[in-house]
Amino acid sequence: MAVIKVHGHHFSTATAMVFCCLNEKQVEYEFVVVDLPTGAHKKPQYLALNPFGVVPTIQDGDLILFESRAIVRYLAKKYAGQGTDLLGSTLAEQALVDQWCEVQSQSFFSPAAAILFQTVLLPIRGGTTDEAAVAINIEKLNKVLDIYEERLSKSKYLAGDFFSLADLTHLPWTQYLVTACKKGDLISSRKHVKAWWDDISSRPAWKKVAEKMPK
Amino acid sequence: MAVIKVHGHHFSTATAMVFCCLNEKQVEYEFVVVDLPTGAHKKPQYLALNPFGVVPTIQDGDLILFESRAIVRYLAKKYAGQGTDLLGSTLAEQALVDQWCEVQSQSFFSPAAAILFQTVLLPIRGGTTDEAAVAINIEKLNKVLDIYEERLSKSKYLAGDFFSLADLTHLPWTQYLVTACKKGDLISSRKHVKAWWDDISSRPAWKKVAEKMPK
Repeated sequence: MAVIKVHGHHFSTATAMVFCCLNEKQVEYEFVVVDLPTGAHKKPQYLALNPFGVVPTIQDGDLILFESRAIVRYLAKKYAGQGTDLLGSTLAEQALVDQWCEVQSQSFFSPAAAILFQTVLLPIRGGTTDEAAVAINIEKLNKVLDIYEERLSKSKYLAGDFFSLADLTHLPWTQYLVTACKKGDLISSRKHVKAWWDDISSRPAWKKVAEKMPK
Repeated sequence: MAVIKVHGHHFSTATAMVFCCLNEKQVEYEFVVVDLPTGAHKKPQYLALNPFGVVPTIQDGDLILFESRAIVRYLAKKYAGQGTDLLGSTLAEQALVDQWCEVQSQSFFSPAAAILFQTVLLPIRGGTTDEAAVAINIEKLNKVLDIYEERLSKSKYLAGDFFSLADLTHLPWTQYLVTACKKGDLISSRKHVKAWWDDISSRPAWKKVAEKMPK
């Protein structure tokens, strides 16, 4: 059987999410670098795989699949019998995994992305950080993380007392917030969020990915 | 068995998505109105169900579940044996359903929401439409819909030749774009997108919901 190809980039949060999932499921893969700095993701060869021109995209035999959250769900289902279970075992558990994945997508992701853009990506590209925009997004993220703190005071992980996709999807963005963005106080100032982060970020499957991401 | 309670509001796109799913699955439910105009969604009684203070939230026995996309996935799985199948039958089909649900969430939703806010919600609240913001978001949505046009020239629905959650999640926002926002040309100017919209918006499960939404 052909090995899964992952078209992506080590700097990309969404690619890191997929790598982490593959490691958790103990699945071998081939990494095909899409050279983002030279715009390879906007060239016809890549757009034929993914018309939105963003990374990652996977190829698994005849299946071409993009959108990182759809990819990790696919991998978790396909390899349900090996590695870490990431989906939950009952319908209710699975629903709560989905719910917290959606919270990541709808509430956590946007302010985290805005902070990364303003504090890291914009300066790299020669722009100037808009400190007001950073403050607005830190305020948004504080509100979200206050809800996480309450939730994590009642269960060890977001969806319950089991590690799942709900936690995994938070890893790449939180990693950048803590390292490149120097906003670790968002995490360390909250007892239960800190314990959760210390736990999930020390998983071997993630550490292997994080060590290749820029600091 | 207790009937599912849906806490939400008829004007809310996310609530409409859940109603449509329940209709497709032929599931009876109890509608508990959360009075958005008086801020009921920000009061302790509702925040105890959903700390993010947005609608909808469902109660199904002991399970309390929020995030509309997680709710419709739960319903589609729980009632897999009745009504319309919304998930796809193979792992690859299910992955493509998830992929296009994520496209809705990550690429379609944000500009559609911005157009609705600028052209309808802001004027209702006494504000003035920012026409430049509308133009930027129409441009974004045009790019997304060009990709949909290409996709829908190859398959009848987004995930393949079967109606699924990928299509269903687009219904409420597209309904408002066409009616309240008066941006129907975004749809009607594209042959395959128009045929898709005419098809999915005429499903009885959706028409029952749409007739209660404001025009």
